[in-house]
Amino acid sequence: MKDIQSLLDKREVYLNEVGIRGIKYPVELRKTDGSWYTTPAVLSLRVDLPETKKGTHMSRFVEVLQEHARIEFPVIKELLVEMKERLEAVNSYFDMEFTWFVEKESPVSGQKSLLDVQVRINAELMGDEFRHRLSVNTPVTTLCPCSKEISDYSAHNQRANVIITVDTPMFLQIEDLVKIAEDSASSPLYSLLKRPDEKYVTEYAYDHPKFVEDVCRDAKLKLDEISGLEAYSVEECACKTLD
Amino acid sequence: MKDIQSLLDKREVYLNEVGIRGIKYPVELRKTDGSWYTTPAVLSLRVDLPETKKGTHMSRFVEVLQEHARIEFPVIKELLVEMKERLEAVNSYFDMEFTWFVEKESPVSGQKSLLDVQVRINAELMGDEFRHRLSVNTPVTTLCPCSKEISDYSAHNQRANVIITVDTPMFLQIEDLVKIAEDSASSPLYSLLKRPDEKYVTEYAYDHPKFVEDVCRDAKLKLDEISGLEAYSVEECACKTLD
Amino acid sequence: MKDIQSLLDKREVYLNEVGIRGIKYPVELRKTDGSWYTTPAVLSLRVDLPETKKGTHMSRFVEVLQEHARIEFPVIKELLVEMKERLEAVNSYFDMEFTWFVEKESPVSGQKSLLDVQVRINAELMGDEFRHRLSVNTPVTTLCPCSKEISDYSAHNQRANVIITVDTPMFLQIEDLVKIAEDSASSPLYSLLKRPDEKYVTEYAYDHPKFVEDVCRDAKLKLDEISGLEAYSVEECACKTLD
Amino acid sequence: MKDIQSLLDKREVYLNEVGIRGIKYPVELRKTDGSWYTTPAVLSLRVDLPETKKGTHMSRFVEVLQEHARIEFPVIKELLVEMKERLEAVNSYFDMEFTWFVEKESPVSGQKSLLDVQVRINAELMGDEFRHRLSVNTPVTTLCPCSKEISDYSAHNQRANVIITVDTPMFLQIEDLVKIAEDSASSPLYSLLKRPDEKYVTEYAYDHPKFVEDVCRDAKLKLDEISGLEAYSVEECACKTLD
Repeated sequence: MKDIQSLLDKREVYLNEVGIRGIKYPVELRKTDGSWYTTPAVLSLRVDLPETKKGTHMSRFVEVLQEHARIEFPVIKELLVEMKERLEAVNSYFDMEFTWFVEKESPVSGQKSLLDVQVRINAELMGDEFRHRLSVNTPVTTLCPCSKEISDYSAHNQRANVIITVDTPMFLQIEDLVKIAEDSASSPLYSLLKRPDEKYVTEYAYDHPKFVEDVCRDAKLKLDEISGLEAYSVEECACKTLD
Repeated sequence: MKDIQSLLDKREVYLNEVGIRGIKYPVELRKTDGSWYTTPAVLSLRVDLPETKKGTHMSRFVEVLQEHARIEFPVIKELLVEMKERLEAVNSYFDMEFTWFVEKESPVSGQKSLLDVQVRINAELMGDEFRHRLSVNTPVTTLCPCSKEISDYSAHNQRANVIITVDTPMFLQIEDLVKIAEDSASSPLYSLLKRPDEKYVTEYAYDHPKFVEDVCRDAKLKLDEISGLEAYSVEECACKTLD
Repeated sequence: MKDIQSLLDKREVYLNEVGIRGIKYPVELRKTDGSWYTTPAVLSLRVDLPETKKGTHMSRFVEVLQEHARIEFPVIKELLVEMKERLEAVNSYFDMEFTWFVEKESPVSGQKSLLDVQVRINAELMGDEFRHRLSVNTPVTTLCPCSKEISDYSAHNQRANVIITVDTPMFLQIEDLVKIAEDSASSPLYSLLKRPDEKYVTEYAYDHPKFVEDVCRDAKLKLDEISGLEAYSVEECACKTLD
Repeated sequence: MKDIQSLLDKREVYLNEVGIRGIKYPVELRKTDGSWYTTPAVLSLRVDLPETKKGTHMSRFVEVLQEHARIEFPVIKELLVEMKERLEAVNSYFDMEFTWFVEKESPVSGQKSLLDVQVRINAELMGDEFRHRLSVNTPVTTLCPCSKEISDYSAHNQRANVIITVDTPMFLQIEDLVKIAEDSASSPLYSLLKRPDEKYVTEYAYDHPKFVEDVCRDAKLKLDEISGLEAYSVEECACKTLD
């Protein structure tokens, strides 16, 4: 059968990225205790396409993915190398989004529960240069300092989503970025609270009022202390700071 | 050209609903002051299909819609009648979802602003019987009575979405259902507050603690007072009561 | 500490459902080969609340869930019983949505790949009566019979989502409902096709033209043959048939 | 009342963006015939915040928006200037997303109908430098050249979303970018087709097979011919090319 994709293309237009985007696939990820967690991830795999080639062979992306479904940090680079070779490309791109569960203990009664956070990984191999970006979206509580100051009693609180994004060639625990987000907010969130916990959390948030501006700034100061980061940003729906 | 849809079908399977679902179309809706508001709505138009007919003529739904894009309450019934006739059906169905803006004044400084609520209309003509359902989703604030009771100071509040759904052959103002939802909560939401407003709203919510259970119950009691409703329900993410 | 939720309520409003909705939790599900598959599911757990009780104890839902995270068919009923007891309720409700992966072989080259389908389970215990509903959303290809008939060559095809919902007290394989949906369409979907497969699939769809009306009818006829179903429906975006 | 936001901040962290994100507001936009179209848009308004200032005054963003709800191209720059002044900032940012309807005629019978496209505008004033980006997402049909070549008859087609993004200091008609996307695909989409139209569209797509790679390349060549663009990109789910 004729291989249309391999035909010569005369339009002289280089394509930066060609591939599959948004495929759902069950990947295995390593938990902090060393065991494996299976989850459907949404993945994108792309390579560049030279001016002279008519099309890419989409099915090869799925084959590469099927051979590397257990995704530890070093595997991401292997995937990128494999894509470049199998698709005969110069650059390769890999993105992955998934739900991660962080184990937590409620502050007084010690009840164990899980907090779900959304994680995004963007990795690319530009020639031989490996770039790796990790982004963690942590829901937290913020209590408004202005509302507290001007009201005779109580204060308005609300949920905020803190997105910490770091560019780093190293592996980084998702849990570490969650902790930075939570420590910068008025209070963490818990899915299981007993009454003594609820009292503690209510008063704790009131004692730690924060604008989203404060959350971003405090998170940035904590990120400054981690060595090896190339760049990072802290973003909340209403606020953003870049390194 | 052959009309495949009109061919005889021998499988003897009646189809309850056939048509177009999820089409975006710019409809015109009447505001409380009598003027017209244009908005992209998401619409579904369907009819039933007898056992003997192979298919329906989808393009006729779009034609009916184009001829009735200015949608006042009486127009909905006209649309349903027109669909039945044009598609030679016994029953017809019309659904519409759109964003509606309610004008509000902040409680102290009187600042005007808009609150967006999501509205859904489901209407059907079953033979000659007209049924009409209106559903309004209003975001409000609830302040937890338990958190207030057990904490030495402050209390946890959160956003809740109150969905009030009423079955009624009459026209009903969206604003009336929004008001019921807001009056049943710890506090309404505003998109524009000055500092004196913020103080007022913070203290007001603290003075009106509500579980979502309370919001549903109080809204139901208010709905009991409206005459002419055939059935209704109040639903919050965590709670539901039917008439 | 005072237990506000247990206070007497004087409004005399019965609440049909109170609980937690939309919680993400990593459940374990049994695959057809007997092994376990972990996936984040979106869950809702609710009970009814009598007129006289002010509130429900939300944290108990999370506790029940944590004790039953490995969810086989019989566990669903256990969960419902446990909820009723722990929350002192008459009725209990359990919903779960998750992504499931069906293993497939491409039709000519036998390439293995996965198809992701969305699954929803709704179960309830109304007093002692157990009700269980399974709903599977399968993406398929439909090729328009009208476009084929009137065109000198080729025919328009498109993606359709076939939702088969069955009410049954028994356990049913998700794969069985996926197969019914695919066999009723113009062609199944595959995430990995080699060229001989692509030729086969293209010609196969052209040889099996189907309106969405046809897909619904053919799926219904296949469901008629399964014994033990209490009710069922087949729904596509544009079409719906009830048992 | 104390103005907490205006307090001095000692953390020395500059915030690139602070403001409101994702607010729904009914804006008025000018149609090609000069009349006004009202639609709920999703807007984001932000400014930068110097190291020394504790917080921004969120309510002022809503005020600026309320005063400029009729948004023609020159108004966007006015909004940015106004935000900078009212919020005492150096940079200001404005984003807007909305649904736009393009009028179309079916190719044979001349039936009029509307196609909805998603539009995004990103504008910013960095000091005095005005930057303006327009992005239009047009749904089209692509028919696979490989499937056509290797099959004895028919060919697989599918829906693609072509996103054309242009950086330009000038005003550009949304319709012009839609046309480029449609002319680069195998066929445009129509919401209303009669049978002669359907025959035409089916055969036309078969006569114009396109990989998504082809769509991106052809769209790029058409964009090359527009003068005054600073940069642009063409993106489909599976493909991307930058200027």
